[in-house]
Amino acid sequence: MSANDRLAAANRAWLDAAKVFAINMMASPGAGKTSLITRTVEPLRDELRIGAVDGDIATTLDADRIAALGIPTVQINTGGTCHLDAAMLQSALLQLPLEELDLLIIENVGNLVCPASFKLGGHRSVLIASVPEGDDKPYKYPVMYRGVDALVLNKMDVLAAFEFDVDYFLQGVEVLNPSLAFFPLSCKTGEGLETWLAWLRKEVREYVPGDSGASN
Amino acid sequence: MSANDRLAAANRAWLDAAKVFAINMMASPGAGKTSLITRTVEPLRDELRIGAVDGDIATTLDADRIAALGIPTVQINTGGTCHLDAAMLQSALLQLPLEELDLLIIENVGNLVCPASFKLGGHRSVLIASVPEGDDKPYKYPVMYRGVDALVLNKMDVLAAFEFDVDYFLQGVEVLNPSLAFFPLSCKTGEGLETWLAWLRKEVREYVPGDSGASN
Repeated sequence: MSANDRLAAANRAWLDAAKVFAINMMASPGAGKTSLITRTVEPLRDELRIGAVDGDIATTLDADRIAALGIPTVQINTGGTCHLDAAMLQSALLQLPLEELDLLIIENVGNLVCPASFKLGGHRSVLIASVPEGDDKPYKYPVMYRGVDALVLNKMDVLAAFEFDVDYFLQGVEVLNPSLAFFPLSCKTGEGLETWLAWLRKEVREYVPGDSGASN
Repeated sequence: MSANDRLAAANRAWLDAAKVFAINMMASPGAGKTSLITRTVEPLRDELRIGAVDGDIATTLDADRIAALGIPTVQINTGGTCHLDAAMLQSALLQLPLEELDLLIIENVGNLVCPASFKLGGHRSVLIASVPEGDDKPYKYPVMYRGVDALVLNKMDVLAAFEFDVDYFLQGVEVLNPSLAFFPLSCKTGEGLETWLAWLRKEVREYVPGDSGASN
Protein backbone atom coordinates (compact mmCIF):
# COMPACT_ATOMS: atom_id res chain seq x y z
CA MET A 1 0.00 0.00 0.00
CA SER A 2 1.51 3.33 -1.04
CA ALA A 3 1.91 6.26 1.36
CA ASN A 4 -0.83 8.03 -0.59
CA ASP A 5 -3.19 5.06 -0.27
CA ARG A 6 -2.59 4.93 3.48
CA LEU A 7 -3.36 8.63 3.82
CA ALA A 8 -6.45 8.18 1.63
CA ALA A 9 -7.66 5.44 4.02
CA ALA A 10 -7.05 7.81 6.93
CA ASN A 11 -9.08 10.54 5.19
CA ARG A 12 -11.87 8.04 4.61
CA ALA A 13 -11.91 7.04 8.28
CA TRP A 14 -12.00 10.71 9.27
CA LEU A 15 -14.88 11.47 6.89
CA ASP A 16 -16.77 8.40 8.14
CA ALA A 17 -16.26 9.42 11.78
CA ALA A 18 -17.79 12.80 10.90
CA LYS A 19 -20.50 11.13 8.74
CA VAL A 20 -19.56 13.14 5.66
CA PHE A 21 -20.11 11.59 2.22
CA ALA A 22 -17.39 12.78 -0.16
CA ILE A 23 -17.21 12.76 -3.96
CA ASN A 24 -14.14 13.37 -6.10
CA MET A 25 -14.98 15.20 -9.36
CA MET A 26 -12.48 14.79 -12.19
CA ALA A 27 -12.40 16.03 -15.80
CA SER A 28 -10.45 17.59 -18.64
CA PRO A 29 -9.86 21.33 -18.43
CA GLY A 30 -13.09 23.09 -19.35
CA ALA A 31 -15.43 20.08 -19.27
CA GLY A 32 -17.58 21.80 -16.66
CA LYS A 33 -16.54 20.68 -13.17
CA THR A 34 -17.23 24.02 -11.53
CA SER A 35 -20.45 24.49 -13.51
CA LEU A 36 -21.73 21.08 -12.42
CA ILE A 37 -20.82 21.81 -8.80
CA THR A 38 -22.74 25.09 -9.01
CA ARG A 39 -25.71 23.33 -10.62
CA THR A 40 -25.57 20.67 -7.87
CA VAL A 41 -25.16 22.90 -4.84
CA GLU A 42 -27.91 25.36 -5.78
CA PRO A 43 -30.82 22.88 -5.67
CA LEU A 44 -29.41 20.73 -2.83
CA ARG A 45 -28.12 23.25 -0.32
CA ASP A 46 -31.49 23.58 1.41
CA GLU A 47 -31.73 19.84 2.05
CA LEU A 48 -28.06 18.91 2.56
CA ARG A 49 -25.21 20.65 4.34
CA ILE A 50 -22.57 20.86 1.63
CA GLY A 51 -18.90 21.82 1.68
CA ALA A 52 -16.36 21.99 -1.14
CA VAL A 53 -12.67 21.56 -1.75
CA ASP A 54 -11.36 23.12 -4.93
CA GLY A 55 -8.06 22.04 -6.44
CA ASP A 56 -6.32 24.15 -9.03
CA ILE A 57 -2.85 24.71 -10.43
CA ALA A 58 -3.10 28.44 -9.95
CA THR A 59 -5.71 31.13 -9.20
CA THR A 60 -8.82 30.99 -7.03
CA LEU A 61 -11.26 31.54 -9.93
CA ASP A 62 -13.17 28.29 -9.35
CA ALA A 63 -13.03 28.44 -5.57
CA ASP A 64 -14.44 31.96 -5.73
CA ARG A 65 -17.37 30.77 -7.88
CA ILE A 66 -18.12 27.97 -5.42
CA ALA A 67 -17.67 30.07 -2.29
CA ALA A 68 -20.14 32.55 -3.80
CA LEU A 69 -22.78 29.84 -3.29
CA GLY A 70 -22.47 30.42 0.45
CA ILE A 71 -21.00 27.03 1.41
CA PRO A 72 -17.74 26.32 3.26
CA THR A 73 -15.05 26.13 0.57
CA VAL A 74 -11.34 25.42 0.84
CA GLN A 75 -8.98 26.19 -2.01
CA ILE A 76 -6.01 23.92 -2.65
CA ASN A 77 -3.45 25.50 -4.91
CA THR A 78 -1.27 22.64 -6.10
CA GLY A 79 1.51 24.95 -7.25
CA GLY A 80 1.93 23.20 -10.58
CA THR A 81 1.17 19.61 -9.56
CA CYS A 82 -1.21 17.95 -12.00
CA HIS A 83 -3.54 16.30 -9.47
CA LEU A 84 -4.75 16.40 -5.88
CA ASP A 85 -3.35 13.80 -3.50
CA ALA A 86 -4.47 12.47 -0.14
CA ALA A 87 -2.12 14.76 1.80
CA MET A 88 -3.61 17.84 0.10
CA LEU A 89 -7.12 16.65 0.95
CA GLN A 90 -6.06 16.03 4.55
CA SER A 91 -4.88 19.62 4.88
CA ALA A 92 -8.17 20.83 3.41
CA LEU A 93 -10.25 18.66 5.79
CA LEU A 94 -8.45 20.35 8.71
CA GLN A 95 -9.92 23.66 7.55
CA LEU A 96 -13.53 22.49 7.14
CA PRO A 97 -16.32 22.22 9.74
CA LEU A 98 -16.77 18.49 9.03
CA GLU A 99 -19.23 17.89 11.89
CA GLU A 100 -21.59 20.36 10.21
CA LEU A 101 -21.51 18.75 6.74
CA ASP A 102 -23.43 15.93 5.03
CA LEU A 103 -21.74 16.11 1.63
CA LEU A 104 -18.26 17.18 0.58
CA ILE A 105 -17.62 17.89 -3.09
CA ILE A 106 -13.98 17.76 -4.14
CA GLU A 107 -13.03 19.38 -7.44
CA ASN A 108 -9.80 17.84 -8.71
CA VAL A 109 -7.30 19.49 -11.09
CA GLY A 110 -8.40 19.60 -14.76
CA ASN A 111 -6.57 16.58 -16.16
CA LEU A 112 -7.62 13.21 -17.63
CA VAL A 113 -4.42 11.41 -16.66
CA CYS A 114 -2.83 12.14 -13.30
CA PRO A 115 -5.83 12.34 -10.92
CA ALA A 116 -6.79 8.76 -11.84
CA SER A 117 -3.70 7.46 -10.05
CA PHE A 118 -4.17 9.22 -6.71
CA LYS A 119 -6.92 8.16 -4.32
CA LEU A 120 -8.07 10.87 -1.97
CA GLY A 121 -10.30 8.94 0.43
CA GLY A 122 -13.72 9.96 -0.86
CA HIS A 123 -16.68 7.59 -1.26
CA ARG A 124 -17.43 8.06 -4.94
CA SER A 125 -15.54 9.39 -7.94
CA VAL A 126 -17.26 11.15 -10.81
CA LEU A 127 -15.83 11.87 -14.24
CA ILE A 128 -17.26 14.77 -16.23
CA ALA A 129 -16.80 14.34 -19.97
CA SER A 130 -18.15 16.88 -22.45
CA VAL A 131 -19.43 16.66 -26.00
CA PRO A 132 -16.86 19.02 -27.60
CA GLU A 133 -13.98 16.83 -26.35
CA GLY A 134 -15.00 14.08 -28.75
CA ASP A 135 -16.41 10.58 -28.52
CA ASP A 136 -13.03 8.82 -28.52
CA LYS A 137 -11.95 9.79 -25.01
CA PRO A 138 -12.83 6.48 -23.25
CA TYR A 139 -10.55 4.71 -25.72
CA LYS A 140 -7.70 7.19 -25.22
CA TYR A 141 -7.88 7.68 -21.44
CA PRO A 142 -8.87 4.18 -20.23
CA VAL A 143 -7.42 4.42 -16.72
CA MET A 144 -9.59 7.42 -15.90
CA TYR A 145 -12.74 5.87 -17.37
CA ARG A 146 -12.11 2.53 -15.66
CA GLY A 147 -11.73 3.98 -12.19
CA VAL A 148 -14.88 6.05 -11.71
CA ASP A 149 -18.31 5.30 -10.23
CA ALA A 150 -20.29 7.78 -12.30
CA LEU A 151 -19.87 9.49 -15.66
CA VAL A 152 -21.47 12.79 -16.58
CA LEU A 153 -21.55 13.79 -20.25
CA ASN A 154 -21.90 17.57 -20.16
CA LYS A 155 -22.74 20.11 -22.91
CA MET A 156 -25.44 17.91 -24.46
CA ASP A 157 -27.06 21.14 -25.70
CA VAL A 158 -24.38 21.40 -28.41
CA LEU A 159 -24.55 17.75 -29.51
CA ALA A 160 -25.86 18.69 -32.95
CA ALA A 161 -22.90 21.03 -33.58
CA PHE A 162 -20.29 18.31 -33.07
CA GLU A 163 -19.60 14.94 -34.65
CA PHE A 164 -20.14 13.03 -31.43
CA ASP A 165 -21.47 9.47 -31.67
CA VAL A 166 -23.00 8.70 -28.26
CA ASP A 167 -23.20 4.97 -29.07
CA TYR A 168 -19.49 4.80 -29.96
CA PHE A 169 -18.65 6.73 -26.78
CA LEU A 170 -20.74 4.37 -24.63
CA GLN A 171 -19.30 1.26 -26.29
CA GLY A 172 -15.87 2.43 -25.17
CA VAL A 173 -17.15 3.08 -21.66
CA GLU A 174 -18.96 -0.26 -21.44
CA VAL A 175 -15.80 -2.27 -22.11
CA LEU A 176 -13.89 -0.46 -19.38
CA ASN A 177 -16.55 0.07 -16.78
CA PRO A 178 -19.85 -1.73 -17.38
CA SER A 179 -21.45 -0.84 -14.05
CA LEU A 180 -20.95 2.89 -13.86
CA ALA A 181 -23.87 5.33 -13.67
CA PHE A 182 -24.21 7.56 -16.76
CA PHE A 183 -25.73 11.04 -16.86
CA PRO A 184 -25.94 12.94 -20.14
CA LEU A 185 -26.87 16.54 -19.28
CA SER A 186 -26.30 20.21 -19.94
CA CYS A 187 -25.22 22.54 -17.17
CA LYS A 188 -26.15 25.41 -19.46
CA THR A 189 -29.77 24.48 -20.21
CA GLY A 190 -30.38 22.25 -17.20
CA GLU A 191 -31.54 19.26 -19.26
CA GLY A 192 -30.71 15.96 -17.57
CA LEU A 193 -29.70 17.53 -14.27
CA GLU A 194 -32.63 16.03 -12.31
CA THR A 195 -31.44 12.46 -12.97
CA TRP A 196 -27.94 13.32 -11.77
CA LEU A 197 -29.31 15.03 -8.67
CA ALA A 198 -31.57 12.05 -7.91
CA TRP A 199 -28.55 9.72 -8.09
CA LEU A 200 -26.48 11.92 -5.80
CA ARG A 201 -29.36 12.35 -3.30
CA LYS A 202 -29.79 8.57 -3.19
CA GLU A 203 -26.05 7.97 -2.69
CA VAL A 204 -25.98 10.42 0.22
CA ARG A 205 -29.19 9.00 1.74
CA GLU A 206 -28.00 5.40 1.55
CA TYR A 207 -24.51 6.20 2.79
CA VAL A 208 -23.47 4.06 5.78
CA PRO A 209 -20.26 5.44 7.32
CA GLY A 210 -17.53 2.81 7.43
CA ASP A 211 -19.35 0.55 4.97
CA SER A 212 -19.01 2.14 1.57
CA GLY A 213 -16.49 0.08 -0.36
CA ALA A 214 -13.09 1.03 -1.69
CA SER A 215 -11.62 4.46 -1.12
CA ASN A 216 -11.70 6.68 -4.20
CA MET B 1 20.53 21.22 -16.41
CA SER B 2 18.26 18.23 -15.90
CA ALA B 3 18.81 14.90 -17.63
CA ASN B 4 15.72 15.63 -19.73
CA ASP B 5 17.05 19.05 -20.76
CA ARG B 6 20.38 17.49 -21.80
CA LEU B 7 18.58 14.89 -23.91
CA ALA B 8 16.37 17.62 -25.39
CA ALA B 9 19.52 19.51 -26.41
CA ALA B 10 20.86 16.31 -27.99
CA ASN B 11 17.59 15.86 -29.92
CA ARG B 12 17.85 19.44 -31.10
CA ALA B 13 21.40 18.94 -32.33
CA TRP B 14 20.33 15.77 -34.14
CA LEU B 15 17.38 17.52 -35.80
CA ASP B 16 19.62 20.44 -36.81
CA ALA B 17 22.22 18.09 -38.29
CA ALA B 18 19.46 16.56 -40.41
CA LYS B 19 17.96 20.02 -41.15
CA VAL B 20 14.55 19.07 -39.80
CA PHE B 21 12.38 21.80 -38.25
CA ALA B 22 10.33 20.31 -35.40
CA ILE B 23 7.22 21.62 -33.65
CA ASN B 24 5.72 20.31 -30.40
CA MET B 25 1.90 20.48 -30.38
CA MET B 26 0.24 20.52 -26.96
CA ALA B 27 -3.38 20.81 -25.82
CA SER B 28 -6.16 19.60 -23.56
CA PRO B 29 -7.80 16.31 -24.50
CA GLY B 30 -10.12 16.95 -27.42
CA ALA B 31 -8.96 20.46 -28.32
CA GLY B 32 -8.12 19.30 -31.83
CA LYS B 33 -4.42 18.39 -32.04
CA THR B 34 -4.91 15.56 -34.50
CA SER B 35 -7.44 17.55 -36.51
CA LEU B 36 -5.04 20.48 -36.82
CA ILE B 37 -2.22 18.15 -37.85
CA THR B 38 -4.47 16.65 -40.53
CA ARG B 39 -5.50 20.14 -41.70
CA THR B 40 -1.81 21.15 -41.80
CA VAL B 41 -0.35 18.12 -43.54
CA GLU B 42 -2.96 17.96 -46.31
CA PRO B 43 -2.17 21.35 -47.89
CA LEU B 44 1.59 21.28 -47.12
CA ARG B 45 2.64 17.76 -48.02
CA ASP B 46 3.23 18.62 -51.67
CA GLU B 47 5.65 21.44 -50.81
CA LEU B 48 7.29 20.08 -47.63
CA ARG B 49 8.47 16.61 -46.64
CA ILE B 50 6.61 16.07 -43.36
CA GLY B 51 6.90 13.40 -40.67
CA ALA B 52 4.97 12.97 -37.43
CA VAL B 53 5.42 11.62 -33.94
CA ASP B 54 2.22 10.87 -32.06
CA GLY B 55 2.19 10.54 -28.29
CA ASP B 56 -0.71 8.94 -26.50
CA ILE B 57 -1.48 7.22 -23.22
CA ALA B 58 -3.07 4.26 -24.98
CA THR B 59 -4.36 3.25 -28.43
CA THR B 60 -3.09 4.19 -31.89
CA LEU B 61 -6.27 6.06 -32.87
CA ASP B 62 -4.50 9.36 -33.55
CA ALA B 63 -1.39 7.83 -35.10
CA ASP B 64 -3.63 5.85 -37.47
CA ARG B 65 -5.39 9.06 -38.56
CA ILE B 66 -2.05 10.75 -39.22
CA ALA B 67 -0.43 7.75 -40.92
CA ALA B 68 -3.46 7.65 -43.23
CA LEU B 69 -2.17 10.94 -44.67
CA GLY B 70 0.70 8.97 -46.18
CA ILE B 71 3.55 10.52 -44.16
CA PRO B 72 6.12 8.74 -41.98
CA THR B 73 4.52 8.46 -38.54
CA VAL B 74 5.85 7.00 -35.30
CA GLN B 75 3.53 6.21 -32.42
CA ILE B 76 4.77 6.67 -28.86
CA ASN B 77 2.60 4.93 -26.34
CA THR B 78 3.51 6.47 -22.99
CA GLY B 79 1.92 3.65 -21.02
CA GLY B 80 0.13 5.98 -18.64
CA THR B 81 2.66 8.81 -18.42
CA CYS B 82 1.02 12.20 -18.79
CA HIS B 83 3.52 13.77 -21.21
CA LEU B 84 6.22 13.03 -23.75
CA ASP B 85 9.82 13.48 -22.66
CA ALA B 86 13.08 13.89 -24.55
CA ALA B 87 13.97 10.20 -24.22
CA MET B 88 10.68 9.19 -25.84
CA LEU B 89 11.29 11.61 -28.70
CA GLN B 90 14.84 10.27 -29.10
CA SER B 91 13.49 6.73 -29.55
CA ALA B 92 10.99 8.03 -32.11
CA LEU B 93 13.68 9.92 -34.06
CA LEU B 94 15.58 6.64 -34.40
CA GLN B 95 12.63 5.24 -36.32
CA LEU B 96 12.17 8.16 -38.72
CA PRO B 97 13.92 8.88 -42.07
CA LEU B 98 15.16 12.27 -40.79
CA GLU B 99 17.35 12.97 -43.84
CA GLU B 100 14.22 12.87 -45.98
CA LEU B 101 12.18 15.33 -43.88
CA ASP B 102 11.80 19.12 -43.75
CA LEU B 103 9.23 19.33 -40.97
CA LEU B 104 8.50 17.07 -38.01
CA ILE B 105 5.20 17.51 -36.19
CA ILE B 106 5.13 16.11 -32.66
CA GLU B 107 1.72 15.54 -31.06
CA ASN B 108 2.10 15.53 -27.29
CA VAL B 109 -0.23 13.81 -24.79
CA GLY B 110 -3.56 15.58 -24.20
CA ASN B 111 -2.80 17.50 -21.02
CA LEU B 112 -2.50 21.19 -20.05
CA VAL B 113 -0.13 20.60 -17.16
CA CYS B 114 2.60 18.00 -17.51
CA PRO B 115 3.90 18.55 -21.08
CA ALA B 116 4.77 22.16 -20.19
CA SER B 117 7.57 20.94 -17.91
CA PHE B 118 9.34 18.61 -20.34
CA LYS B 119 11.32 20.01 -23.26
CA LEU B 120 11.66 17.65 -26.19
CA GLY B 121 14.21 19.44 -28.36
CA GLY B 122 11.93 20.86 -31.04
CA HIS B 123 12.22 24.37 -32.49
CA ARG B 124 8.76 25.72 -31.73
CA SER B 125 5.97 24.78 -29.35
CA VAL B 126 2.33 25.32 -30.23
CA LEU B 127 -0.62 25.26 -27.84
CA ILE B 128 -4.05 24.45 -29.22
CA ALA B 129 -6.86 25.88 -27.11
CA SER B 130 -10.50 25.49 -28.11
CA VAL B 131 -13.59 27.60 -27.60
CA PRO B 132 -15.64 25.01 -25.64
CA GLU B 133 -12.90 24.78 -22.98
CA GLY B 134 -13.70 28.29 -21.82
CA ASP B 135 -11.98 31.67 -21.85
CA ASP B 136 -10.38 31.31 -18.39
CA LYS B 137 -7.74 28.74 -19.32
CA PRO B 138 -4.75 31.12 -19.62
CA TYR B 139 -5.44 32.22 -16.04
CA LYS B 140 -5.73 28.64 -14.77
CA TYR B 141 -2.87 26.99 -16.68
CA PRO B 142 -0.26 29.79 -16.77
CA VAL B 143 2.83 27.60 -17.11
CA MET B 144 1.54 26.10 -20.35
CA TYR B 145 0.48 29.46 -21.80
CA ARG B 146 3.75 31.11 -20.78
CA GLY B 147 5.97 28.54 -22.46
CA VAL B 148 4.69 28.39 -26.03
CA ASP B 149 5.61 30.21 -29.23
CA ALA B 150 2.23 30.04 -30.91
CA LEU B 151 -1.37 29.70 -29.75
CA VAL B 152 -4.16 28.29 -31.89
CA LEU B 153 -7.75 28.86 -30.75
CA ASN B 154 -9.70 26.07 -32.44
CA LYS B 155 -13.46 25.51 -32.90
CA MET B 156 -14.16 29.16 -33.70
CA ASP B 157 -17.18 27.93 -35.69
CA VAL B 158 -19.05 27.33 -32.41
CA LEU B 159 -18.11 30.65 -30.78
CA ALA B 160 -21.73 31.83 -30.76
CA ALA B 161 -22.87 28.70 -28.87
CA PHE B 162 -20.51 29.29 -25.93
CA GLU B 163 -19.96 32.13 -23.49
CA PHE B 164 -16.39 32.74 -24.61
CA ASP B 165 -15.03 36.28 -24.35
CA VAL B 166 -12.09 36.45 -26.78
CA ASP B 167 -10.89 39.74 -25.26
CA TYR B 168 -10.79 38.28 -21.75
CA PHE B 169 -8.97 35.20 -23.07
CA LEU B 170 -6.38 37.35 -24.86
CA GLN B 171 -5.88 39.62 -21.86
CA GLY B 172 -4.86 36.53 -19.88
CA VAL B 173 -2.54 35.43 -22.66
CA GLU B 174 -0.99 38.90 -23.07
CA VAL B 175 0.12 39.07 -19.43
CA LEU B 176 1.84 35.69 -19.64
CA ASN B 177 3.21 35.71 -23.15
CA PRO B 178 2.97 39.03 -24.99
CA SER B 179 4.97 37.99 -28.05
CA LEU B 180 3.30 34.75 -29.05
CA ALA B 181 1.63 34.28 -32.43
CA PHE B 182 -2.16 33.84 -32.21
CA PHE B 183 -4.34 31.93 -34.69
CA PRO B 184 -8.09 31.74 -34.16
CA LEU B 185 -9.43 29.11 -36.58
CA SER B 186 -11.77 26.20 -37.15
CA CYS B 187 -10.44 22.84 -38.26
CA LYS B 188 -14.02 21.92 -39.09
CA THR B 189 -14.89 24.78 -41.47
CA GLY B 190 -11.34 25.73 -42.43
CA GLU B 191 -11.75 29.41 -41.45
CA GLY B 192 -8.47 30.93 -40.29
CA LEU B 193 -6.32 28.02 -41.42
CA GLU B 194 -4.52 30.00 -44.14
CA THR B 195 -3.00 32.39 -41.58
CA TRP B 196 -1.75 29.48 -39.49
CA LEU B 197 -0.31 27.75 -42.55
CA ALA B 198 1.39 30.97 -43.67
CA TRP B 199 3.08 31.29 -40.25
CA LEU B 200 4.26 27.68 -40.29
CA ARG B 201 5.53 27.95 -43.89
CA LYS B 202 7.49 31.07 -42.94
CA GLU B 203 8.97 29.44 -39.83
CA VAL B 204 10.15 26.45 -41.88
CA ARG B 205 11.49 28.66 -44.69
CA GLU B 206 13.42 30.92 -42.30
CA TYR B 207 14.74 28.05 -40.21
CA VAL B 208 18.54 28.10 -39.84
CA PRO B 209 19.77 24.84 -38.31
CA GLY B 210 21.75 25.46 -35.13
CA ASP B 211 20.49 29.02 -34.81
CA SER B 212 16.90 28.83 -33.69
CA GLY B 213 16.81 29.83 -30.03
CA ALA B 214 15.92 27.81 -26.96
CA SER B 215 14.96 24.19 -27.20
CA ASN B 216 11.23 23.58 -26.77
